[in-house]
Amino acid sequence: MADTHSEFEIIDRYFNRPASGAVLGIGDDAALITVPPQTELAISTDTLVCGKHFLADTDPYQLGHKSLAVNLSDMAAMGAKPRWVLLALTLPDHLARHPTWLSEFSQGFGALAAEHDVVLIGGDTTAGPLNIGVQIIGEVPAGRALRRSGAKVEDDIWVSGQIGNAALALQHELHQRTLAPDEIAHCLPALLRPVPRIQLGQRLLGLAHSAIDISDGLLADLGHLLKASRKSGYITMADIPCSGVLKKYLSDSAAVNCLLGGGDDYELCFTAAKTKRPIIQQLAEELAVPLTRIGEIQAGNGLIIKDADGNAMTWETRGYDHFSA
Amino acid sequence: MADTHSEFEIIDRYFNRPASGAVLGIGDDAALITVPPQTELAISTDTLVCGKHFLADTDPYQLGHKSLAVNLSDMAAMGAKPRWVLLALTLPDHLARHPTWLSEFSQGFGALAAEHDVVLIGGDTTAGPLNIGVQIIGEVPAGRALRRSGAKVEDDIWVSGQIGNAALALQHELHQRTLAPDEIAHCLPALLRPVPRIQLGQRLLGLAHSAIDISDGLLADLGHLLKASRKSGYITMADIPCSGVLKKYLSDSAAVNCLLGGGDDYELCFTAAKTKRPIIQQLAEELAVPLTRIGEIQAGNGLIIKDADGNAMTWETRGYDHFSA
Repeated sequence: MADTHSEFEIIDRYFNRPASGAVLGIGDDAALITVPPQTELAISTDTLVCGKHFLADTDPYQLGHKSLAVNLSDMAAMGAKPRWVLLALTLPDHLARHPTWLSEFSQGFGALAAEHDVVLIGGDTTAGPLNIGVQIIGEVPAGRALRRSGAKVEDDIWVSGQIGNAALALQHELHQRTLAPDEIAHCLPALLRPVPRIQLGQRLLGLAHSAIDISDGLLADLGHLLKASRKSGYITMADIPCSGVLKKYLSDSAAVNCLLGGGDDYELCFTAAKTKRPIIQQLAEELAVPLTRIGEIQAGNGLIIKDADGNAMTWETRGYDHFSA
Repeated sequence: MADTHSEFEIIDRYFNRPASGAVLGIGDDAALITVPPQTELAISTDTLVCGKHFLADTDPYQLGHKSLAVNLSDMAAMGAKPRWVLLALTLPDHLARHPTWLSEFSQGFGALAAEHDVVLIGGDTTAGPLNIGVQIIGEVPAGRALRRSGAKVEDDIWVSGQIGNAALALQHELHQRTLAPDEIAHCLPALLRPVPRIQLGQRLLGLAHSAIDISDGLLADLGHLLKASRKSGYITMADIPCSGVLKKYLSDSAAVNCLLGGGDDYELCFTAAKTKRPIIQQLAEELAVPLTRIGEIQAGNGLIIKDADGNAMTWETRGYDHFSA
């Protein structure tokens, strides 16, 4: 790893590194970590590309936050406790030479890392078009991780939080619609500073049968879960939790698309037996995270969306693919 | 992770995945791995950027090989056995739509992975300027990893293989010099298909006091090792092993720079007690890897290069930094 570079020292400066976090952190050819017995490691990588995953003028502090948040969300979806992170940052010259960009990015990344006791153990900085690669490693009790493939027939389908605010805010930012000042103020945090559902994910171990985080959109991600579980399911449109702001616009199809196809909220979608309803509702209260039942797992394959009258709606459910767009 | 994307399935097709390699591989929000007792994990990430680490017209098979090789080299430098790898690939449209580029890249990457029993457990593909991020995870017996910081006074300084062929070939490819056809044929493999010293690294456990791989150049990387070990050292210019081709050009300073400042050969530089000379020479024969003593660790700080008469030479020893170039 090219971790002795001066620019990496800038990043490193903004991280707290508890002594117990790793055997060996930044500054060698690799980091070294130890894993407690009866523990599996969950490992994930996500890349953010300028112009695809964020706008060129995104505030660097918020970009640092989001770069880690989307990776933490993968840990949440597995029920894993995030422990260590690596950052592979490719920076164009104008940002590398910028007086504050890198330190602000690092502060945003580092503050969220500190909040979750996640330790930066390595990385790489290179020069080139802006590209942010994050690798995250978490711990989960052996054999208990939440998978996409565990959904069972008659499971409830649940989602956390509100769906669609991030996509609605993005439409505003891209000048595809104009939200009122109070409306954009309500929706923008979901886009710029998503909150990964780390605690919820860990509390769902042994409670949920399957889980996924909503990064590509509710239909796409629930579709991945159904496919992995070899099941079908339905969701009721009117039950999908969304903000009053989004609800106001649901008569237009671009807003419906925020709800069904917009990613970037990084909420969790999970399935659980009906017998778990009371304990899940109690968990929602305890964590102060809304948890809403939106449908049910069934045998077969495919996903049906029901309207308020219980009739099947048609909607394009294909997952987002960067290259088939 | 966005591992359900169609383009990732293309990559996935070219990898062998032994059943025992991971608890859960590609296709969920994260991969899951188990770690044997008394084992530490070594984790590293390296990014290759088009125009910085490789030329735009690099053959995709060789680029796939090299992307993994430079990461395997980090495992070698720790004495770790590489086990798992993740690939974060950012591809411009013209390569994503190219009929063979991605499959050839994947074959080059996959063939080297198979050779070392390394399993692809996850990754991410995104659209944007070409950027290849690889994360590698290896196993090392607890407490025994080779570190940069372990060099002791009077240790011999060793290097594996030949130094400078890759840098000399790059000068030819960049039209900074013209090598004869047999000369470029001799040097080019070091640049395009470096051989990570995986087996050597693991055999140096308990034998070497410190190690680093030479990716930024001998002076820079040995400098990192000395700094981490809080020691000084000298190397004798004439003892640095190089090819007959490079030797022929050593009267010009650009060629000397290949030897002292050229990276990309991915050889190992390590230090060991003088009492270990016989066993290290035996290891060289057993592995059929040349191992050459080039100098000695001393107290203090700094690195001295001695000419054939034992006099100190002056040379620019600053490490390579992408942004200060």
